[in-house]
Amino acid sequence: MKEFWSKKILDIIPYTPGEQPRERLFIKLNTNECPYPPSPRVIEAIREAAGDSLRLYPDPECTQLRAAIAGREGLDVSQVFCGNGSDEILAFAFQAFFDEDREVVFPKITYSFYPVYTDFFGLKRREIPMNPDFSDPVDLLCGKNGGVVLANPNAPTGISVGLDTVERLLKANPDVVVIVDEAYIDFGADSAVGLIARYPNLLVVQTASKSRALAGLRVGWAMGNENLIAAMRCVRDSINSYTVDRLAQAGAAAAIEDEDYFQSIRRRVINTRVWTENALKGKGFTVLPSQTNFVFASHPGYSGRALLDGLRERGILVRWWGKPEIRDWLRISIGTQEEMEALVKALDELI
Amino acid sequence: MKEFWSKKILDIIPYTPGEQPRERLFIKLNTNECPYPPSPRVIEAIREAAGDSLRLYPDPECTQLRAAIAGREGLDVSQVFCGNGSDEILAFAFQAFFDEDREVVFPKITYSFYPVYTDFFGLKRREIPMNPDFSDPVDLLCGKNGGVVLANPNAPTGISVGLDTVERLLKANPDVVVIVDEAYIDFGADSAVGLIARYPNLLVVQTASKSRALAGLRVGWAMGNENLIAAMRCVRDSINSYTVDRLAQAGAAAAIEDEDYFQSIRRRVINTRVWTENALKGKGFTVLPSQTNFVFASHPGYSGRALLDGLRERGILVRWWGKPEIRDWLRISIGTQEEMEALVKALDELI
Repeated sequence: MKEFWSKKILDIIPYTPGEQPRERLFIKLNTNECPYPPSPRVIEAIREAAGDSLRLYPDPECTQLRAAIAGREGLDVSQVFCGNGSDEILAFAFQAFFDEDREVVFPKITYSFYPVYTDFFGLKRREIPMNPDFSDPVDLLCGKNGGVVLANPNAPTGISVGLDTVERLLKANPDVVVIVDEAYIDFGADSAVGLIARYPNLLVVQTASKSRALAGLRVGWAMGNENLIAAMRCVRDSINSYTVDRLAQAGAAAAIEDEDYFQSIRRRVINTRVWTENALKGKGFTVLPSQTNFVFASHPGYSGRALLDGLRERGILVRWWGKPEIRDWLRISIGTQEEMEALVKALDELI
Repeated sequence: MKEFWSKKILDIIPYTPGEQPRERLFIKLNTNECPYPPSPRVIEAIREAAGDSLRLYPDPECTQLRAAIAGREGLDVSQVFCGNGSDEILAFAFQAFFDEDREVVFPKITYSFYPVYTDFFGLKRREIPMNPDFSDPVDLLCGKNGGVVLANPNAPTGISVGLDTVERLLKANPDVVVIVDEAYIDFGADSAVGLIARYPNLLVVQTASKSRALAGLRVGWAMGNENLIAAMRCVRDSINSYTVDRLAQAGAAAAIEDEDYFQSIRRRVINTRVWTENALKGKGFTVLPSQTNFVFASHPGYSGRALLDGLRERGILVRWWGKPEIRDWLRISIGTQEEMEALVKALDELI
């Protein structure tokens, strides 16, 4: 019915997150979670923080966590902003940097929250069709825009662009903010963080959800020059001053500080991805070149929907979108080696 | 500078949260935190949840936590929505229910985030002057509004209204949503939750930050009929699908379930408040009748600013606003009995 709903939300089509099943045990290859647990130091830090001090508000500025990130990335603390997952960071950034009267541009096949943000925040957008090989249409993202959003690597395609390309984009759009969403950066592509010193219009967004195995903790961060970070803070303090709780701050800081553990799990994911790509290609799949913790694949003999349903019947969840351009493609998260072997076995039955 | 900032935020004056000192040990009576630790069952639940499953996204619908709240309040789960603190809940509600073309009304002296929300979300507002005794100007909140927001009990005055008054407000504004912000409800006033069945325009907002001693965990919730809750979900899923992390969901559910502990700490706070009111009156203070975990007080012989600074010098933080109507008033959170005795001792020196 929608009685009392504001006009703003009457026709909104919200984002649909991947299924989080609770009744049945699935092999979950549908939401790009890390198949390995978080660092033991994270658990320790959280258990330590879980005490009497929970009665007190958290540090709204996330000082310790920002210091950990800044230290790792060679930035100043004033160049880092933390939030409740990178979705919150993106939602803040769309409000902080984009205006109603100029089109925000991003590729047509990308993270499906971007068009939800432009709709919800009353912004215009221009979605640029992909190149025929599903790579990013970078030339068409250059110039005369109200803002640019580029997921690098892109999701769900998994394809990344090089820093020369990111730099081209920054130079071609000098008067607007270019958001580079690096949710999957740790699985093979090069981060644009090093460009922050030279480009005042660059905002780099990262998350603890994937490569730090902390999707359940809700921590993301933006990095950019101090002026952009001040804008992010202005948006946050107009909505909710404390979005990262004490436990999340402590846990995420410990995750950032445990570099060895981080390196070991991301390497394992990359190795399993390479194995999976080869196994799928061996079965006749087309697999896009992935720099992420998932692969995007299609099979000439089967529709995406048939594969999705067939895998689900066999206890394996993957992600599928009904959109015309990618209706025959599946996004398959990289699980453990054993999980991916189970996937291949299920496909053996299906194909 | 503000280069690249959106027009929307250029002139915004964000909310200023109370100081969270980190260098020096203060007696913190400035942010209405609970002076007692959270229930031991909360700590236990968090430590249990702090494990491998943090690699997985949380339940976006907070099912277990909502069931705990619904069970306690005699509601259906579909009538409860959970978020990252009641500030997030309020921010969602302003977007879900209020339109640009009709004025949102609330009392002039109330939670200072409300005018920030109307500014930030591009809404018009009408702030209704308080009655001379600082009670809520309820008659003037009735009728021809685009929405009503009432903190009950009110902050920073501490004064509450009865359910008959809330009901009058609901009846007088049948075509718009009335948000009753019950952040402080557990310290003496009557909750409007029982009215939800009869008033489809009522949204009741509560928090775990005060009476559950969990300001550091960031959990708040809205209660209302299913249609209003669906609107809240629509807003959330247009911004950030998972705003309450796994640890916060587990901890807050345990807090709701430990009714005995909750009753014991809220009673202690109420007893100390009564003691504090009497002690302050004994020193010549005017103290408004509080149904909260703070008192709002002024002294005929001293400015609010002088008392604020004098207390700070003596290691005690309280909250003061520069606004003309209340510039001689202090909001003093109720701490432990010992902390309030220290406050009175400091005032002995000051006055």
